[in-house]
Amino acid sequence: MERLETFPNPSPGRRFVITHVLHEFTSVCPLTGLPDFAKVTISYIPDEICLELKALKYYFLEFRNMGIFYEAVTNKILDDLVERCSPLEMRITTDWGMRGGMSSVIVADYVKLQGQ
Amino acid sequence: MERLETFPNPSPGRRFVITHVLHEFTSVCPLTGLPDFAKVTISYIPDEICLELKALKYYFLEFRNMGIFYEAVTNKILDDLVERCSPLEMRITTDWGMRGGMSSVIVADYVKLQGQ
Amino acid sequence: MERLETFPNPSPGRRFVITHVLHEFTSVCPLTGLPDFAKVTISYIPDEICLELKALKYYFLEFRNMGIFYEAVTNKILDDLVERCSPLEMRITTDWGMRGGMSSVIVADYVKLQGQ
Amino acid sequence: MERLETFPNPSPGRRFVITHVLHEFTSVCPLTGLPDFAKVTISYIPDEICLELKALKYYFLEFRNMGIFYEAVTNKILDDLVERCSPLEMRITTDWGMRGGMSSVIVADYVKLQGQ
Amino acid sequence: MERLETFPNPSPGRRFVITHVLHEFTSVCPLTGLPDFAKVTISYIPDEICLELKALKYYFLEFRNMGIFYEAVTNKILDDLVERCSPLEMRITTDWGMRGGMSSVIVADYVKLQGQ
Amino acid sequence: MERLETFPNPSPGRRFVITHVLHEFTSVCPLTGLPDFAKVTISYIPDEICLELKALKYYFLEFRNMGIFYEAVTNKILDDLVERCSPLEMRITTDWGMRGGMSSVIVADYVKLQGQ
Amino acid sequence: MERLETFPNPSPGRRFVITHVLHEFTSVCPLTGLPDFAKVTISYIPDEICLELKALKYYFLEFRNMGIFYEAVTNKILDDLVERCSPLEMRITTDWGMRGGMSSVIVADYVKLQGQ
Amino acid sequence: MERLETFPNPSPGRRFVITHVLHEFTSVCPLTGLPDFAKVTISYIPDEICLELKALKYYFLEFRNMGIFYEAVTNKILDDLVERCSPLEMRITTDWGMRGGMSSVIVADYVKLQGQ
Amino acid sequence: MERLETFPNPSPGRRFVITHVLHEFTSVCPLTGLPDFAKVTISYIPDEICLELKALKYYFLEFRNMGIFYEAVTNKILDDLVERCSPLEMRITTDWGMRGGMSSVIVADYVKLQGQ
Amino acid sequence: MERLETFPNPSPGRRFVITHVLHEFTSVCPLTGLPDFAKVTISYIPDEICLELKALKYYFLEFRNMGIFYEAVTNKILDDLVERCSPLEMRITTDWGMRGGMSSVIVADYVKLQGQ
Repeated sequence: MERLETFPNPSPGRRFVITHVLHEFTSVCPLTGLPDFAKVTISYIPDEICLELKALKYYFLEFRNMGIFYEAVTNKILDDLVERCSPLEMRITTDWGMRGGMSSVIVADYVKLQGQ
Repeated sequence: MERLETFPNPSPGRRFVITHVLHEFTSVCPLTGLPDFAKVTISYIPDEICLELKALKYYFLEFRNMGIFYEAVTNKILDDLVERCSPLEMRITTDWGMRGGMSSVIVADYVKLQGQ
Repeated sequence: MERLETFPNPSPGRRFVITHVLHEFTSVCPLTGLPDFAKVTISYIPDEICLELKALKYYFLEFRNMGIFYEAVTNKILDDLVERCSPLEMRITTDWGMRGGMSSVIVADYVKLQGQ
Repeated sequence: MERLETFPNPSPGRRFVITHVLHEFTSVCPLTGLPDFAKVTISYIPDEICLELKALKYYFLEFRNMGIFYEAVTNKILDDLVERCSPLEMRITTDWGMRGGMSSVIVADYVKLQGQ
Repeated sequence: MERLETFPNPSPGRRFVITHVLHEFTSVCPLTGLPDFAKVTISYIPDEICLELKALKYYFLEFRNMGIFYEAVTNKILDDLVERCSPLEMRITTDWGMRGGMSSVIVADYVKLQGQ
Repeated sequence: MERLETFPNPSPGRRFVITHVLHEFTSVCPLTGLPDFAKVTISYIPDEICLELKALKYYFLEFRNMGIFYEAVTNKILDDLVERCSPLEMRITTDWGMRGGMSSVIVADYVKLQGQ
Repeated sequence: MERLETFPNPSPGRRFVITHVLHEFTSVCPLTGLPDFAKVTISYIPDEICLELKALKYYFLEFRNMGIFYEAVTNKILDDLVERCSPLEMRITTDWGMRGGMSSVIVADYVKLQGQ
Repeated sequence: MERLETFPNPSPGRRFVITHVLHEFTSVCPLTGLPDFAKVTISYIPDEICLELKALKYYFLEFRNMGIFYEAVTNKILDDLVERCSPLEMRITTDWGMRGGMSSVIVADYVKLQGQ
Repeated sequence: MERLETFPNPSPGRRFVITHVLHEFTSVCPLTGLPDFAKVTISYIPDEICLELKALKYYFLEFRNMGIFYEAVTNKILDDLVERCSPLEMRITTDWGMRGGMSSVIVADYVKLQGQ
Repeated sequence: MERLETFPNPSPGRRFVITHVLHEFTSVCPLTGLPDFAKVTISYIPDEICLELKALKYYFLEFRNMGIFYEAVTNKILDDLVERCSPLEMRITTDWGMRGGMSSVIVADYVKLQGQ
């Protein structure tokens, strides 16, 4: 997570929405050891800082050989990115390819409470 | 239904949405004995436990030679899954292929009442 | 309309939505005598009874050689089906192919009043 | 506008929505004299009368060699059709093809005030 | 920005929505010097004046060789266009092509306060 | 078939291809009495005469209540149209909607022999 | 296979192509016992007899609980249908859904030799 | 036709293919006086000269209020453009919108004979 | 490559085509160390043996952390699979996601010579 | 053009096809000074050397502010790339966005003669 770099919000007085979509996320199923593939969408309203795009790409490489479930990886990405850039709001969506005739989507949200 | 396995919610303090789509569901029409085909979508907000994906696939196999109507199978899946994982909310959508020039979609919802 | 058959709602205590789409509806334009073609969507929340699918298909055959306007046929289907199955809510959508460079969609809704 | 014909609403006691889409509208740019092309969508809730479809097609022919801006033609169609059929609500959407790498959409709404 | 021309709102008493989509926006990444490509959508409710379409196209040419980040260019377009036509509401959406397996969308809104 | 009208080929010295697609053909299944729906494509190289488009539409209306199999109707259309306009080449394609989970396409060709 | 019924070719003197697509074929994987799903396309030039469509649908039901590999089922369908209707040419295409991130298509052809 | 301008082929020694697609062609039906709309595709192998794109657009404006049949306009465009730029090969395709449930496509080809 | 298992061709006397598509292939760029993603299509006419599907999936896992260029990996897969199952013909297609605004496709073929 | 780097063909004894698609090419219209946008496809059969992908991207940047016609830029890219890597065959396709309602595609081919 130390790879996540940031830069100051260029319009800190305005609420606006930034969305980045990583089309080629891959991790490993902890039960079978087989690779899982997903499209990961990060959508957030920045507070004072924004996530730097290239560093974000390197952050996702850390999952390439990590064994982790769909639900856990979605919540871990949300926790990591919220901790790093402290946004007003953030939503992580992971959209997983078919396994045994089933596809899956996990959506997790964060909203900063007043005073946080 | 005994096939349905579960695992603890990895982020029990956060409301998040899990969606699984089974693209290849099949059951049998109780009137004609002919097979019906559907795409089944399970979308839920877990409370304390989550549904295990592979066991879910085996659960759906039980319908392969079962004679049951569209409306009944949709409500039965909702009843079975709610009983098994006690979610905060759950929606089952069944999307049926064409029969005699008609296609059908059935949507059934569950919301846990406070104190349940 | 006597062709419309019904069966008891399998989950009468739960509000759920049933949608049937007839992809191949045809009637006749009362002005020109030429055929009209539409996709008809019936979406409803059943109260105590549901519409039987095969009988529904036969009901629609009655329009094949009937001269009737877009707006009138949409409202007539809604009136007929509401009278037959007394749903909590129902929406009829008719989506008509191009005539003279124009396509049309008509949407009519019914909501059961309390005490009805 | 005298070409616009109407007929009585077949279900005057029910609020329902009628949508007509003209896929092949054309007018002329008043600056360059070059033709503009659009898809025009008329969506309305009738009060006592409905717009007759064939007359509507002829009404649109009046714009074929008229020089008029996107914003003006959209508002003019809304004014003409509201005056002619006095609907409860009406929305006109014009969706214009690319000019210099840019496409445009204009949306204008009308709602009848109580007592009108 | 001096290139942005305007014309009077043809229906100043009615709230209506104008959307222009520039399919071929390009600027330069300030870090790498490589070109970025985006689809830019301007959607606004005019107050007293509207943006002239051809001048808008020339305005966007100013970014062709400008080094600027996604977040900054989106907010700069919103600031420039609001200053020029003082709309009731405006939304700028920039939709950027893939870089390193990631695509991005930025959305910024403006609403005129009463008395402004 | 007497409805089929023709007009002289405007470029009789050049081989060129004319294709007409009827998107809304309907006939009746001779076994079940239920309607069948198809998209019919007529593609031909005219010799001395061409098929008139409006008359062609009326010709197809004759099938609306005719009981006839997919294979027979395709060959009958080919026979009728070849007899009427004596083309250099003609292909009839009928593309039928789903019945019991199956869709069908029938393709029949005609080539005029030298000296015919 | 005894279920396969036929009828005489309505245009035996003309080579024409008949294609039937079964969108909802299912069999069982002989290794895992799990269901496989495919779209099956039968395309043939009839000689003296054609395959009856409804009987064809029942023929495919025989595979619903049969354990058989992709390659074998494709060739078996071709052998069965060729034996039954002795066509001039036939092609069977089976298009299988994803298993472990892989989808498959098998294509097998038959051509009647002269004198057969 | 005098509007058609040309420029010298930049690579006269190489056979290459130029395709221009006009998405917004319109002419008038000579029977009904109603407008027809088409997509027109010009594909050719230049010999010594190429067609200038902007002049080509103005050439097509001449058809806007001309009454002419589908088959005739296709052959006229081919004749006009061949006469103007004398290509090695040229194909004109006109793809017409729906009229009475039917759409049409006309394709006409030209090949320069040796010595021409 | 030792992971590649095979089974006897079930119809060795007939030329037929087997196609497998791996939608989720990944390897590593040898220059940057960053992951590459591709869709890999294997299409072949078997001679005496066929490739077993599950083993094929495991074979592709060997590339997950291998640094190798697009052109080299395509030819290596062709060499490995030809050596393992000695087909009559085989084609490997690799379809790579965007890198720096560019996507790529590599296609390599093998045909067994007579007497091989 | 000096930016174009190459590497040795990894399978020089086998004819195989390499395709690169640049989705974001831009140059300038020499008449109007306005930008043009295209998708450029390079497809070739290498002889002894292949084009390096990253250098190819930089080569295309040289056109960003160059005034050049569609036909000329297509032939120039073909000339440059053939000179640089001397392929057995090469095809350049440029697919240009809409200008004045018209889009264009230019295709130019090269085949190495024996002994070259």
